[in-house]
Amino acid sequence: MTHQALYNFGAGPAMLPAEVVRATAQAVTNYQGMGISLMEMGHRTPQFKAVMVEAQDLMRELLHIPATHSVLFLGGGARLQFSMVPMNLLKHKAAYLDSGHWAHQAMDEARLWGETICVASTESDNYTHIPHHYHIPTDVDYLHITTNNTIYGTELRTDIDSPVPLVADMSSDILTRPIDISRYDLIYGGAQKNLSMAGVTFVIVRNEAVISSIRPLPAMLSYATHIQHEGMYNTPPMLPIYTALQTLRWVKAQGECVRWNVVLKSVQNCSMLPLTRVIFFMVLPKVLTVRL
Amino acid sequence: MTHQALYNFGAGPAMLPAEVVRATAQAVTNYQGMGISLMEMGHRTPQFKAVMVEAQDLMRELLHIPATHSVLFLGGGARLQFSMVPMNLLKHKAAYLDSGHWAHQAMDEARLWGETICVASTESDNYTHIPHHYHIPTDVDYLHITTNNTIYGTELRTDIDSPVPLVADMSSDILTRPIDISRYDLIYGGAQKNLSMAGVTFVIVRNEAVISSIRPLPAMLSYATHIQHEGMYNTPPMLPIYTALQTLRWVKAQGECVRWNVVLKSVQNCSMLPLTRVIFFMVLPKVLTVRL
Repeated sequence: MTHQALYNFGAGPAMLPAEVVRATAQAVTNYQGMGISLMEMGHRTPQFKAVMVEAQDLMRELLHIPATHSVLFLGGGARLQFSMVPMNLLKHKAAYLDSGHWAHQAMDEARLWGETICVASTESDNYTHIPHHYHIPTDVDYLHITTNNTIYGTELRTDIDSPVPLVADMSSDILTRPIDISRYDLIYGGAQKNLSMAGVTFVIVRNEAVISSIRPLPAMLSYATHIQHEGMYNTPPMLPIYTALQTLRWVKAQGECVRWNVVLKSVQNCSMLPLTRVIFFMVLPKVLTVRL
Repeated sequence: MTHQALYNFGAGPAMLPAEVVRATAQAVTNYQGMGISLMEMGHRTPQFKAVMVEAQDLMRELLHIPATHSVLFLGGGARLQFSMVPMNLLKHKAAYLDSGHWAHQAMDEARLWGETICVASTESDNYTHIPHHYHIPTDVDYLHITTNNTIYGTELRTDIDSPVPLVADMSSDILTRPIDISRYDLIYGGAQKNLSMAGVTFVIVRNEAVISSIRPLPAMLSYATHIQHEGMYNTPPMLPIYTALQTLRWVKAQGECVRWNVVLKSVQNCSMLPLTRVIFFMVLPKVLTVRL
């Protein structure tokens, strides 16, 4: 039985392209014929450094990330970003859009670090839709949004117009649409949804936004530290980053003109699955990773 | 060429037993014949829950960890523990033994959270030996030690006698000797040295020591949160934990009477390697993971 026999449409870790799974297994067994597993290699070897740099560069290329922003692959999970974001960015006041469970959790964590306001919430509607017709104050450091609310199947498919920088949790829809990165001070996400296995978190961060902080920060929780060390301040989650690189190569190989239609293509090609298109749309957050 | 062809004695990620590498590759390709990669499985599945529980239980069994302590496998790297330790445990004052680069880094991070004293340092001797003849004050919350200083080849091979609870970084010597866990409020380490690949950090923590904190803590940085959720508060680094489980099974399979002599056995069996015993002793921190 190949590993493709079972399809997982759960809201947690998701399916990966077959090529990505194969490449990861090969790297575990014997990395590039070197006679050593990638798991056993030093993270400061030229071989792993090349993995890190290519993964960062491909994120930059595929998402058109400008030189103003850095790409990081960190440990600790997206949930640690709920705290790192306000620790690094909340100077005066922060605004949050409460569009679901995870958005709410992010907002709750921010409260520990300073004044945090909720610009709008659909909690009383059980988050069945994303809030609209809300006012974004201009005196906040950032507006935090969760672009895809996996539990409810709601999604912000465009970059919202905001007078303040955006910060976005894109755990489950990164690489499914073009993003105007210039509107964002920070984009983060757990890689296990669309990019890799559990254990690595991607962060796209505007360098100038984190160059200084109003509070002393633990080195590990300072984006500036990680930027300064080009993502190698500590031993990074090496194999999960290697798997992310394989997915990024796979996405690139799909070709420029179809890349942003991966979701649509998945739906169009799902006739072999015992699932209706309705069900497929319910699991839209995950379909980037469905094999086409 | 098999992956055993190359030996890595570096101070970073280290070698793993061949069985561990094989089992990890199999889990990546097709987990237990389920037709899915472990990378693609939900972390709340019974299958992964079983991995987590067995890994925690084997740590408990092999290290004789009493019920007073919990076992956690967290993301973020051992370096994040440099901050989590004082955030959770430093109430009044903390003491640090400065025996090397990493010990010093841990001490520097603690200073952010309260009064931190250095009981002794061998920095002026370039850390060529571990400090001795020092006084441990009784009015500190804990004494932090780094039991193995990989850069210098120095090691604390016994549990030191202390009037206050110990906290230890055992990144590179966990599972090489019996530990009197009752003397420790907390033991932590990056798994990539002796237990797994980079991306997971083990924590053994006394529950009562972290039940309350003097400061509000981000949920992800609170040991109490992770204990309460049995290590599943967020999506854990699943594959690195699976690999840790395989190493723990391998260590257990070595048998009770030889387990703590793994280091010695490695030296006794190294005649096939183009290395003198002197060199072998220089890499003692890593030899648990050398194939016998």
